Amino acid sequence: MKHFISDDFLLQSSFAKKLYHDYAKNLPIIDYHCHLSPSDIASNRIFENLTRIWLEGDHYKWRAMRSLGIAEKFITGSAPDLEKFNQWAYTVPFTVRNPLYHWTHLELSRYFDEHDLLTPETAASIYTRCNEKLNAPEFSTQKLIQKMKVEVIGTTDDPIDSLEHHTTIKLNNVGVKVLPTFRPDKAFAVENPDTYNQYLDKLEHVTGTILSDFESLIIALEKRINFFHQLGCRLSDHGLEYFFYTDQEVDAHTLFKKIRAKTKLNSKEVHDYKYAVLIELGRLYHKNNWTQQFHFGALRNTNSRMMKSLGPDTGFDSIGDFAQGQNLALFLNKLDSTNQLAKTILYNLNPAANEVVATMIGNFNDGSVKGKIQFGSAWWFLDQKDGMEKQLNTLSNMGLLSCFIGMLTDSRSFLSYPRHEYFRRILCNLIGNDVENGELPGDEKWLGKIVSDICYHNAKAYFNFG
Amino acid sequence: MKHFISDDFLLQSSFAKKLYHDYAKNLPIIDYHCHLSPSDIASNRIFENLTRIWLEGDHYKWRAMRSLGIAEKFITGSAPDLEKFNQWAYTVPFTVRNPLYHWTHLELSRYFDEHDLLTPETAASIYTRCNEKLNAPEFSTQKLIQKMKVEVIGTTDDPIDSLEHHTTIKLNNVGVKVLPTFRPDKAFAVENPDTYNQYLDKLEHVTGTILSDFESLIIALEKRINFFHQLGCRLSDHGLEYFFYTDQEVDAHTLFKKIRAKTKLNSKEVHDYKYAVLIELGRLYHKNNWTQQFHFGALRNTNSRMMKSLGPDTGFDSIGDFAQGQNLALFLNKLDSTNQLAKTILYNLNPAANEVVATMIGNFNDGSVKGKIQFGSAWWFLDQKDGMEKQLNTLSNMGLLSCFIGMLTDSRSFLSYPRHEYFRRILCNLIGNDVENGELPGDEKWLGKIVSDICYHNAKAYFNFG
Amino acid sequence: MKHFISDDFLLQSSFAKKLYHDYAKNLPIIDYHCHLSPSDIASNRIFENLTRIWLEGDHYKWRAMRSLGIAEKFITGSAPDLEKFNQWAYTVPFTVRNPLYHWTHLELSRYFDEHDLLTPETAASIYTRCNEKLNAPEFSTQKLIQKMKVEVIGTTDDPIDSLEHHTTIKLNNVGVKVLPTFRPDKAFAVENPDTYNQYLDKLEHVTGTILSDFESLIIALEKRINFFHQLGCRLSDHGLEYFFYTDQEVDAHTLFKKIRAKTKLNSKEVHDYKYAVLIELGRLYHKNNWTQQFHFGALRNTNSRMMKSLGPDTGFDSIGDFAQGQNLALFLNKLDSTNQLAKTILYNLNPAANEVVATMIGNFNDGSVKGKIQFGSAWWFLDQKDGMEKQLNTLSNMGLLSCFIGMLTDSRSFLSYPRHEYFRRILCNLIGNDVENGELPGDEKWLGKIVSDICYHNAKAYFNFG
Repeated sequence: MKHFISDDFLLQSSFAKKLYHDYAKNLPIIDYHCHLSPSDIASNRIFENLTRIWLEGDHYKWRAMRSLGIAEKFITGSAPDLEKFNQWAYTVPFTVRNPLYHWTHLELSRYFDEHDLLTPETAASIYTRCNEKLNAPEFSTQKLIQKMKVEVIGTTDDPIDSLEHHTTIKLNNVGVKVLPTFRPDKAFAVENPDTYNQYLDKLEHVTGTILSDFESLIIALEKRINFFHQLGCRLSDHGLEYFFYTDQEVDAHTLFKKIRAKTKLNSKEVHDYKYAVLIELGRLYHKNNWTQQFHFGALRNTNSRMMKSLGPDTGFDSIGDFAQGQNLALFLNKLDSTNQLAKTILYNLNPAANEVVATMIGNFNDGSVKGKIQFGSAWWFLDQKDGMEKQLNTLSNMGLLSCFIGMLTDSRSFLSYPRHEYFRRILCNLIGNDVENGELPGDEKWLGKIVSDICYHNAKAYFNFG
Repeated sequence: MKHFISDDFLLQSSFAKKLYHDYAKNLPIIDYHCHLSPSDIASNRIFENLTRIWLEGDHYKWRAMRSLGIAEKFITGSAPDLEKFNQWAYTVPFTVRNPLYHWTHLELSRYFDEHDLLTPETAASIYTRCNEKLNAPEFSTQKLIQKMKVEVIGTTDDPIDSLEHHTTIKLNNVGVKVLPTFRPDKAFAVENPDTYNQYLDKLEHVTGTILSDFESLIIALEKRINFFHQLGCRLSDHGLEYFFYTDQEVDAHTLFKKIRAKTKLNSKEVHDYKYAVLIELGRLYHKNNWTQQFHFGALRNTNSRMMKSLGPDTGFDSIGDFAQGQNLALFLNKLDSTNQLAKTILYNLNPAANEVVATMIGNFNDGSVKGKIQFGSAWWFLDQKDGMEKQLNTLSNMGLLSCFIGMLTDSRSFLSYPRHEYFRRILCNLIGNDVENGELPGDEKWLGKIVSDICYHNAKAYFNFG
Repeated sequence: MKHFISDDFLLQSSFAKKLYHDYAKNLPIIDYHCHLSPSDIASNRIFENLTRIWLEGDHYKWRAMRSLGIAEKFITGSAPDLEKFNQWAYTVPFTVRNPLYHWTHLELSRYFDEHDLLTPETAASIYTRCNEKLNAPEFSTQKLIQKMKVEVIGTTDDPIDSLEHHTTIKLNNVGVKVLPTFRPDKAFAVENPDTYNQYLDKLEHVTGTILSDFESLIIALEKRINFFHQLGCRLSDHGLEYFFYTDQEVDAHTLFKKIRAKTKLNSKEVHDYKYAVLIELGRLYHKNNWTQQFHFGALRNTNSRMMKSLGPDTGFDSIGDFAQGQNLALFLNKLDSTNQLAKTILYNLNPAANEVVATMIGNFNDGSVKGKIQFGSAWWFLDQKDGMEKQLNTLSNMGLLSCFIGMLTDSRSFLSYPRHEYFRRILCNLIGNDVENGELPGDEKWLGKIVSDICYHNAKAYFNFG
């Protein structure tokens, strides 16, 4: 029986241990997609206590607490920080077999050197000791990032964002490259004509471009792309339920006029309009040699009662089962047919689509770039051992694992960097098992190279962060 | 090489063995959903022979025999019981790796103390010995149930059922709580206006309520809910291909008039009407603090030739691949939006929906009840080791395994209770493996508590059987 | 740590080793479905070099090379054979964990007795040595087939094919039964009226039947079925995205007139027409006691840019996620309802449909033939260890593994026969693991029989190759 979270955590074979310790463990981290707050980095925020850094915005933890029957007061409500922490400490032992259980103890270990299990019995002492550490300058956001050897961080930013915090970060030497990512979801959220027009008004203001027609919208977005580019942005990102496509020519001009006249579009028009915007954006990304990311397949804001009281991103989203293959192929082909398909990363939320995505990427890998189209690392609900293993195995069987650009946190928390360690251990373990089973030759140097490519060098080469 | 079906069957680690033998094995069984015959329990039926108790209604076995090329005569046909048994004994060795192989030998072992493999060679002696036992009073239905330490049984009953057998059972001390479950599928089976109107006529008769409009239908159903409630019913159940939902207000009143006028509804009207009935029922379940169950995703009665000759539930059903996520979310939200969502158990038949369901339940767990919305145990074709492990692992990774209310047989057979043993072994084995691999700390007391909660205490607390 | 591709490759238990070496290894091969060139067999082709036999038509390898960023010139382009081979040798080490890595080294070992790993360092010597062997008469196509103990080969042929090469093969004793398979995809490819009419014209010419109406089309196809039958054909095959079905009577007569008048059908008409043709064909297959195969669920020719330059089957296909269950059930039932459902093999490309297919086959197994409806072996992207294990496990859990007719290569390459070895090892390993874990009794004789049935005897009995 192994000790929990030992040095060899998740490493079941001696070959895996060698791979991890000698080839993966010490590599820097390129966290090319996350939701860290640029403001918190720029201000080098110090967190008051564990409740703030752990529970302030973490809907994974909130969902677990609600499932256990804990009242909202102790989750997002008015209860004092200490009570919230105690409720969380009560919850942790009930999260066995959920990634939260591993994450919690990895984070306690890697950041705070705390090796006790978090339980109601240990809660008080852990809270006191960790808070003491958190209040010291070595636990500021910038220090936390440096401590984990993070080299690049890609945040997630709206096109109309001033990127002021990124400017501040750039001016000050924070010891890590923090780059914006262009996430234009609101620029095609046309379902609600009121909020969409308000957004367009802001975009007009920020760009000084009168949005009189569809062409001017694209021009305005290109201006923002250029602005983001100057601050080092080389990626975009998009959240979709599914991909849009239509055979016919979309009359985006007329649709845009309708929108500006505050007319609600019907569902086909919404679909067509989004398609038109995304294709134009895709062409701009290609022009700038960016990478476009698509996170697709989530069912969001399913609980209207809680949406009203807490807003979006509060733990009421789940995995959808939309058919993805056909439109995804047609969308990518539309851009490829004129040779304007940018490097692309596809993140599916439903693991039932793993095989669709793993084989789709091969359709548009044209020999121009190593691993041009990527099957993104297991995301959100799939960001756990089983989800990662499925993504890695499917990619291996149906594509080239060796070209994979690897892990990202996609997290809102400054304590999430051990997820890279987690990924690396899982990767090394899979390969190690293959060697132990005689399914791969025990060529340490070559497999070590493959591992370090996936953990660091492939991403480094793939993105042109400069 | 381990012995087949030893004491440590399915338990691969010492920690798993400890968990099973010390924390799971001896717990009573709460079989909150099955299809046992209330009449057979009330009459304390004695089965003539193994053919009757094993093959009379078991379409799992029938399908296996047909696949092997055995003629229907020996399955549901006119062949004598002994010949049918011999054909089944011939089939068993061909079922290796199918759950039937494990079930058959577990049942022989646990009920009959027979440890030989069933083959054509052993068939005659096993038949003779088991029949002798079956004919003794200790093998009456009530004794078989008691022998397995069953504490609660939830049968499956139509709203118009008189529940006379449940009354008989209640009056006689049978040593186990046998409670009806409200399964109103026929109350919304509106596709066929003739049979539906006949059903409504019977409902009128049973309730003394003239079904003049939609409101009176709901009133009549509420009367039956109250009647079931008096006999201890605390659960409902529904079989659906997929969930119904519509954005618009359904004019159930007009639809009902049409139905009573024997007009066939079109498919949208059928959909809308079912939705309207299910929402009203859901509200009644919530009002009575019941739990609603939904079994969804089966393709039923696919073989029209066999349907004509044998009727439904004879082994011609399979797994469908309907999209489930969106309507399921909207249906649950409809009830939740007015705070009328009852405790709910969701059983998907297609394992490709596991992740949809495992994440959906978190959307409506609002902190009011521990594990309020449940991802039901692996069902029907999934009721085997691989299916159970997938359900347990997905629930673990995407929700809280610790809140799970565990196993139920869903069976028509009085010999199915070893399936609870099977489930418990699989559960203990998964957790034991995690401990052996260092993925969980070896805290026997805590993990033993989690195991016993899932096997017994969670269900006990979740249902208010009184 | 095991040696790579040892005698016990993929065999993790002693029971598995016994099963493989004593019961599976030496059985002949019935490769009932592949895409080998009848012309290459008839002419007893000798391949110039490894590039020709390995890279000439293998889109699996092409995709891998493109993913790695290799230019098309070195894949399907004008580069000399040696340069192409070197690019492939460069690629191979990057294919670790992909089946190409195992296939490549198994093929080098089993055909050429080469046991070095293929890398840029070993490329030159391997190329030289293998080419030398390839140029000798023992490496002619017929000898390669014989070397692998292939007993039957089912090629894939268009209804209008003259089958001249099959005639040649039949006349000469080539030491293996090479039989045509009737693949009438073009006979219902009605989307494009021009190419479809051209095809009908050719069919008229070949059959001497004027295609004046739908009935005459079916008569012409029956003539070709009879012709194929005379040359030993007992199987048909069809490639579909999904199954067609319609409730209403299809007016195939009118649709056929429209087609002959070069009118483009709308999508519903295309659907209906295909359905009508496939039902008529299904009835003819049943009449002739053939087996019908359906390969469904691929998204083909997704990359229009590459389609224009390279044509179909060049590596731009992937896995689709079409809903399959309902229409598949209705299609099979349509044929079954008149008792005209032929033996049928269903190959799904999306593993998310495994459970749909594994349970569907049970709906139409009516006891008339052992394993009448088959869940086909893992296909194309699924033809690897993980894909095979999933197919075998799902079939085991939801049907009878013991009735399975086993492996086929579906390959275009004369070096693919080690895939049968690969399958056999995987099968033996799964069963061996069950025995080691105490999940199956260690009855070597019985499990050896099951294994040899699946590897050879079931297929032998299932097809009536004569």
